[in-house]
Amino acid sequence: MNRLEERILRDGVVKEGNVLKVGGFLNHVIDVDLMDWMGQEFKRRFEGLQVDKILTIESSGIAIATMAGHYFHVPVLYAKKNPRIVTMDDDKYVADAFSFTHKVTNHVIVTKSYLQPGEKVLVIDDFLANGAALTALSSIIEQAGAELVGVGIAVEKGMQGAGDRFRANGMRIESLALIDEMDAETNTIKFR
Amino acid sequence: MNRLEERILRDGVVKEGNVLKVGGFLNHVIDVDLMDWMGQEFKRRFEGLQVDKILTIESSGIAIATMAGHYFHVPVLYAKKNPRIVTMDDDKYVADAFSFTHKVTNHVIVTKSYLQPGEKVLVIDDFLANGAALTALSSIIEQAGAELVGVGIAVEKGMQGAGDRFRANGMRIESLALIDEMDAETNTIKFR
Repeated sequence: MNRLEERILRDGVVKEGNVLKVGGFLNHVIDVDLMDWMGQEFKRRFEGLQVDKILTIESSGIAIATMAGHYFHVPVLYAKKNPRIVTMDDDKYVADAFSFTHKVTNHVIVTKSYLQPGEKVLVIDDFLANGAALTALSSIIEQAGAELVGVGIAVEKGMQGAGDRFRANGMRIESLALIDEMDAETNTIKFR
Repeated sequence: MNRLEERILRDGVVKEGNVLKVGGFLNHVIDVDLMDWMGQEFKRRFEGLQVDKILTIESSGIAIATMAGHYFHVPVLYAKKNPRIVTMDDDKYVADAFSFTHKVTNHVIVTKSYLQPGEKVLVIDDFLANGAALTALSSIIEQAGAELVGVGIAVEKGMQGAGDRFRANGMRIESLALIDEMDAETNTIKFR
């Protein structure tokens, strides 16, 4: 069991509806030593892969992506999220993502000049559950004519199936903690 | 001139209405080497100060605070921002902050258990302009019975006066780039 899995078992809280609360170390409080380890671990797992830029999405992906960028020595671009109507001007890529957590459709937005055709992009995010955020980020990478070379995820909810569907389509996904079962009543978690 | 000031002169864009665009390196694209320098520089400027926790606010404060946390070796807590009505339950501190950028009042929210009475808190943020975010964060620290020991800012818009008002009240603020004048027509910036 790795450091993130151990921490999830110790401090994560399972709630009804496949919700895992990790605010104590991942997405409200940030444990910087854990972030540091995750950054290094992504670098190790994607060793040898050419990466020109890391793409993540606000807010909870930013800390992990920043530490990953620190070890990959590449810039980090974070997509902005906005539930309100966005002026669709010519200088932005936009894709929609429905947030099941907040029950709202977010517009995911990246300024065009910050993502260039041909750039090799590694996506980093805190959670992969239903795949809505990853689908939006993939769409933006495609709109830019850039190339998605890999996906690094902190916590994948494997039982929701999106990760395996992406893998079946040839996407390379590395999840540091891949959960196959969670039980809110007993607060138990089974990793793959 | 320091690294951040040089970068602002090179890649920052001044717009009408005292707007400084720094999306190319600070709050859309993140230049991780610059973040690393800022983290170290805050550590150097606050050397000897006891800091138990760093507090910032989503989204653009997170990357800077994460690198600062890396050098201070303390956890980073980021306050969440929500323009919609928040259920005022007993487990959250809430303060309001009007965003002049987005013309909306944000509820700034921190889960109570993540900020303890007596903790010495260093606030880190990307911008200090009219002081709305800093006022909200100070209020949350006060609500928690914690202690604000210092404020580290990347870019302070000195001409808006909020920073100097806080300093006059005894707040210790370290701004890496303190701008006294900006001119959108000529794209010139004067640092203090």
